[in-house]
Amino acid sequence: MADSIKLNNDFKGKDIISLNQFSPEDITTLFTHTNLMKNIAKNAQSSDILKGNIITLIFYESSSRTFGSFSAAMKQLGGQTVEIQNPQEFSSVSKGETLEDTIRVFEAYSDAIVIRHPQIGTALKAADAASFVPIINAGDGIGEHPTQALLDLYTIYEKYQRLGNLTVVFAGDILNGRTIHSLLKGLSLYKNNKIYLLSPKELRLDPHELSKFIKQGLYIMEIETEKEIPKNADIWYWTRVQKERFASLKDYDKVKNRYIVTKDFLKKYAGKETMLMHPLPRVGEIHREVDTDERAVYLSTEIRNGMYIRMALLGLILGKL
Amino acid sequence: MADSIKLNNDFKGKDIISLNQFSPEDITTLFTHTNLMKNIAKNAQSSDILKGNIITLIFYESSSRTFGSFSAAMKQLGGQTVEIQNPQEFSSVSKGETLEDTIRVFEAYSDAIVIRHPQIGTALKAADAASFVPIINAGDGIGEHPTQALLDLYTIYEKYQRLGNLTVVFAGDILNGRTIHSLLKGLSLYKNNKIYLLSPKELRLDPHELSKFIKQGLYIMEIETEKEIPKNADIWYWTRVQKERFASLKDYDKVKNRYIVTKDFLKKYAGKETMLMHPLPRVGEIHREVDTDERAVYLSTEIRNGMYIRMALLGLILGKL
Amino acid sequence: MADSIKLNNDFKGKDIISLNQFSPEDITTLFTHTNLMKNIAKNAQSSDILKGNIITLIFYESSSRTFGSFSAAMKQLGGQTVEIQNPQEFSSVSKGETLEDTIRVFEAYSDAIVIRHPQIGTALKAADAASFVPIINAGDGIGEHPTQALLDLYTIYEKYQRLGNLTVVFAGDILNGRTIHSLLKGLSLYKNNKIYLLSPKELRLDPHELSKFIKQGLYIMEIETEKEIPKNADIWYWTRVQKERFASLKDYDKVKNRYIVTKDFLKKYAGKETMLMHPLPRVGEIHREVDTDERAVYLSTEIRNGMYIRMALLGLILGKL
Repeated sequence: MADSIKLNNDFKGKDIISLNQFSPEDITTLFTHTNLMKNIAKNAQSSDILKGNIITLIFYESSSRTFGSFSAAMKQLGGQTVEIQNPQEFSSVSKGETLEDTIRVFEAYSDAIVIRHPQIGTALKAADAASFVPIINAGDGIGEHPTQALLDLYTIYEKYQRLGNLTVVFAGDILNGRTIHSLLKGLSLYKNNKIYLLSPKELRLDPHELSKFIKQGLYIMEIETEKEIPKNADIWYWTRVQKERFASLKDYDKVKNRYIVTKDFLKKYAGKETMLMHPLPRVGEIHREVDTDERAVYLSTEIRNGMYIRMALLGLILGKL
Repeated sequence: MADSIKLNNDFKGKDIISLNQFSPEDITTLFTHTNLMKNIAKNAQSSDILKGNIITLIFYESSSRTFGSFSAAMKQLGGQTVEIQNPQEFSSVSKGETLEDTIRVFEAYSDAIVIRHPQIGTALKAADAASFVPIINAGDGIGEHPTQALLDLYTIYEKYQRLGNLTVVFAGDILNGRTIHSLLKGLSLYKNNKIYLLSPKELRLDPHELSKFIKQGLYIMEIETEKEIPKNADIWYWTRVQKERFASLKDYDKVKNRYIVTKDFLKKYAGKETMLMHPLPRVGEIHREVDTDERAVYLSTEIRNGMYIRMALLGLILGKL
Repeated sequence: MADSIKLNNDFKGKDIISLNQFSPEDITTLFTHTNLMKNIAKNAQSSDILKGNIITLIFYESSSRTFGSFSAAMKQLGGQTVEIQNPQEFSSVSKGETLEDTIRVFEAYSDAIVIRHPQIGTALKAADAASFVPIINAGDGIGEHPTQALLDLYTIYEKYQRLGNLTVVFAGDILNGRTIHSLLKGLSLYKNNKIYLLSPKELRLDPHELSKFIKQGLYIMEIETEKEIPKNADIWYWTRVQKERFASLKDYDKVKNRYIVTKDFLKKYAGKETMLMHPLPRVGEIHREVDTDERAVYLSTEIRNGMYIRMALLGLILGKL
């Protein structure tokens, strides 16, 4: 299964389904190329690295950010896209065509297929169906979204030039946050990371997950109040606490204003170098007044890094880097 | 506010929100480049002027003509597009992401953002949110649609080699016609234009608007019957009279057939050189039999000019012309 | 009418509405170029044959396969597309703009228009409206879908190096199958073909159609059971038998499992060289276990040939081949 196929520092033609496929060495290779991509894009150099290549973006679920990021990444390198959005409303798929047949069709048109789907496991199913071209998972429901995790790791790496020996605070919905789980997985590959999970009791990490990470040697501390946030953390990774997750409104009311990042909150609890990340979209859990703070990277840096990571990944998988 | 930021003959990196930003000199600069673009497109020359550039087309409201025109304009010059249609149905935006955050995301992927939105003022709001790239207004509800006004002006300029000293008849819904208001604004920048506004009383220009234009020195005459149309007008600019605008059906019945352009109508009231324009879509207010008349430019010339204007504008704003 | 305008071995600027326009010589010309296109695509050569060309894909009905095929074909040759899906939900068209006006708009932006529409005759109507650019029919309801028929013919030609002297079995819904009618039309242009139509009585070819083909010299035999399938047929062309087509469930039950292709069915009734075709989408009438059989070409070969045929057709029509 592609899910567990290690990359072994050779990306060409490989499916990208899960962060589990990446070793620290693979990540280093990807990031080295990402640095190059950043230079190409920043200098508005016109690149023809992927000239003659076509990829299909097939999105069964809309996601303007991820869709736009892959589309732009391909075009930044001179490549082209075939773009299919919501094919379940398209005739063939709506007529009952299987995912497998749909994948076989689009692999005939393109050199790789980027798939987004609301159902967990679909990217792997697509990879099994494809005979000739690699599949890239752009998010499969509560499953994985490996390029999101990689852009988060790259953003950290870019600032600190390391992925170990870091103090990281995750806040918000630790239980359900797909991006948090993926990033924890990534950080567990490196040594001496200290993780703090800030959340109401109701939204703590699943105990099985927690003990799995601890067994892997990750230092994890669960905290509940802002006062327990360690001074001078290297990274804050913020997410939203959704009302719907709470059994009673009273429980929600207790915490709802607790994890809202304002200028004042930042001043009290963050360090001078603490990098403030967020996977987006945000809906109020970080105030707009914070956006101009130099430590805030969720808009701008993270978004751009997402495009650079995808440029590098596409270039490597298509064998052009 | 970008709305009032004058171009001062320097387009590079500027937002294009309103026709108010344009001086006659700016318009001349744009039209000079539009002439060049027309030659590139007409001779099917393959142009690489915008090679390496990517723009985002984000359309919150569908408009196949404007969307297609910007998309083709960019590609005619070797550039690329990231195309996002109806993002309010896309996850991030539908989850409550603000317009500001959405704009910040797409400016990370592209060199400019073209936005269409049903609500007035949205393009300006987007321009305020963007930190790095210019915003182009492709229509914001009852607000402005500057590239439409510019293509109208260019079509006039192309025929007459001037934008002053013209007799222009506007017909139909003068009160609500966004394109009429914009074109009036454009014509008011030039001397000795004579404007006739042909409409039922119910659909006359707002008196405040009227007096504003008159103060600016524009000669405006309000007329109500076809017989009052001046002989040998240089331009007829036709629009639709919508049934919904009338309080009583009786009032509508009185005028409904009055402003329908047929071959016969044209023969009676138009001059031999009168150019017949229409912003499209039309739904019966100009008969199809008129389409082949040499004076009719609403299909063909106006549509093509729309693409040429957008090519020139994109080239100038992206600093490649 | 473009429908009956013969190509006479000159494709440049011609509308492609119906298979009726093609003589055997035209088909040979197209296939010679299709061979070249196949080499370009297979060797991942970067081609610039259509650089500087733009076509509009306007799909009033969704069809991910045909849409993706035309989009990829254009981009494989370095060309660009303006993509408009479901314009009836777009403002101009939804406001009541006629098809003719819409076509006039998009011919101003592009060098050709590919149209898909649920209503028969629409492609021809579009061709009549267009003044400057060719129209390509990508399926007009129960009308024609010429590029589908051409890819079927090419797939046969590629294997047998001839289009006459073939034994072909069509199975399933012979009465309503648009692709079957088109392919029959194509095969009737060549000598000594033997056609077997395998279907329940309810789904036999319309008698008028049948006698028309027979008059043209085509050998046609109607059969009803799998045992009547000729040994060593050159081609099987399979389609689906839809429940809805039957007056009584009893009649349907009699046939429903009869024409399902399994490994076992193939072993019993097909020849060692019999090529198994299907226009897709399939929904169970060929089991997935058959997909890996070397004789099965419906996924892979047929799909890829569809792209090659469209590459060749676009190149010829745009005058670049």
